[in-house]
Amino acid sequence: MTPPILSSPEEYKKLIDSVDTFLLDCDGVIYHGSVVVDGVRETLSMLRKAGKKLIFVTNNASKSRQMYKATFDKLNIEAYPEEIFGSGYASAVYLSEILKFPKDKKVYVIGEAGLEEELDSVGIAHSGGTDPEDNTFMSKDDFSVIKSDPSVGAVLCGFDIRINYKKLATAFSHLRDNEGCHFILTNQDPTYPTTQKSKDPSKPDIKTIYPGSGAISAPLLFASKRTPLIIGKPNKPMMDAIIAEHHFDVKRALMVGDNLATDIEFGINSGVRTLLVMGGVTKREQVFGDDPSPVKPDFVMESFGQFATLAQD
Amino acid sequence: MTPPILSSPEEYKKLIDSVDTFLLDCDGVIYHGSVVVDGVRETLSMLRKAGKKLIFVTNNASKSRQMYKATFDKLNIEAYPEEIFGSGYASAVYLSEILKFPKDKKVYVIGEAGLEEELDSVGIAHSGGTDPEDNTFMSKDDFSVIKSDPSVGAVLCGFDIRINYKKLATAFSHLRDNEGCHFILTNQDPTYPTTQKSKDPSKPDIKTIYPGSGAISAPLLFASKRTPLIIGKPNKPMMDAIIAEHHFDVKRALMVGDNLATDIEFGINSGVRTLLVMGGVTKREQVFGDDPSPVKPDFVMESFGQFATLAQD
Repeated sequence: MTPPILSSPEEYKKLIDSVDTFLLDCDGVIYHGSVVVDGVRETLSMLRKAGKKLIFVTNNASKSRQMYKATFDKLNIEAYPEEIFGSGYASAVYLSEILKFPKDKKVYVIGEAGLEEELDSVGIAHSGGTDPEDNTFMSKDDFSVIKSDPSVGAVLCGFDIRINYKKLATAFSHLRDNEGCHFILTNQDPTYPTTQKSKDPSKPDIKTIYPGSGAISAPLLFASKRTPLIIGKPNKPMMDAIIAEHHFDVKRALMVGDNLATDIEFGINSGVRTLLVMGGVTKREQVFGDDPSPVKPDFVMESFGQFATLAQD
Repeated sequence: MTPPILSSPEEYKKLIDSVDTFLLDCDGVIYHGSVVVDGVRETLSMLRKAGKKLIFVTNNASKSRQMYKATFDKLNIEAYPEEIFGSGYASAVYLSEILKFPKDKKVYVIGEAGLEEELDSVGIAHSGGTDPEDNTFMSKDDFSVIKSDPSVGAVLCGFDIRINYKKLATAFSHLRDNEGCHFILTNQDPTYPTTQKSKDPSKPDIKTIYPGSGAISAPLLFASKRTPLIIGKPNKPMMDAIIAEHHFDVKRALMVGDNLATDIEFGINSGVRTLLVMGGVTKREQVFGDDPSPVKPDFVMESFGQFATLAQD
């Protein structure tokens, strides 16, 4: 069945009345890179006035909630750190609230400052990450630089642009030697979307992709043959972490996203209704073509900014 | 059927008479790390006297044939560069002889000096590898450091202890942008065996494993979703490359190795008979246990060094 496109004020009002909590993907729903989607500021403001709970849900684990807050501020979008849920914070909450990670254990981090900041925020000790000792090249002549540490109880891997063999081998040795060591990925996105400045300064930036978080962790999966726990969308642990903190009724929640494989699948895996917005990564034919994706959103809209326009009708 | 253990001089002579070309794995057959297997020097010398062709076949792509020759010299083992076939040289031969890689194209290398040396030896131009520009950390603020190069016609990935995001992203961008760009792995070994000095200097070195070549290439497979051509054991391209250079009769060849998953599988995939030697990575129960490996060698011996002893009986 082709999912219905929401277009009339009646449909829109019926949907909004049935939702208490809006789970909102960021890039592709709220903004595209540094450009805010038309009407989104008004939509968010209108939802706030109607008393709806807003949670910004993103797989980006490099930024902490504080860093995301700064991004929102720069884009002049009203948002509060406690409304922001990145896969880094979700990993920290999952470790702390759901796995009850022991206070005397440490997490070995492959990841960036934002991920470390979120572990700090829940009081979990960590090593690796941005430590300069772990961000160097090593030689095959001296593997003794890879230090074992029995106090490491989990390896947590997210996007890390300073990925290197020493970090991978250290993480691998913890998984190899430390009994019961958890193996957790913030997310497994295969690619990292970014923009590159055009050579011609009069031309706009070029959208492109490079290896993503899932690529950063791939060596550890391949070498250790272990199946990690994956926190981020489309996986349910992300929702478990959000609910552990926000305690909302999933039946009265709506996941809004532009990506079938992450956002919409995430809603489906977690028993939350889904709204797909066009204009992001999903092509029209994936929803309305002759051979559509098996991942079906409950509702489709052209843009999340339409909410505000429809409300004024 | 349980493979027969060769033990009598008659069995040994029958086998040796049926073989013109011995394909010999190195680590685990000829030596263990820096220790030569008992009787192997005598066995090699005896086979040479009998006019047998010897080819040393190794998945290690970090060392060139010249580097391997130096290792053999240091261990006081008679061997010649033209008898040595590493997966790096095999990749170079495969590109040159089988893929007829165009002279005006370049190979982007994720790998070490030995791999570059082998590409040089067949006259294939390359970039990446040990170039200092490709062996640095980059920042997320400037993806423009990743240079496109339409002249790159293949990405070749082997073990590289200086793996980093810039190299991975550069290789990824060639695969993404250059039409028809080959994607080749020297080998896909999940782990890299090495020895670590014991903390107690009176104790022997500790054997251990770290992420291997297959782990180094895993990010590219995961991000690009491409299936690479894998040269090294157990894959047939390695044999195709050896035969392109040595032109022997596979029916009168024997692959000798200690690893079921690489050496023995390699012989089976290439139509060459196989001899498993014990004392390496294969456990006795994998061959003779109640639930043995489905990979069956044609023959089993305790040690390749036994050849010399048996010949004296």
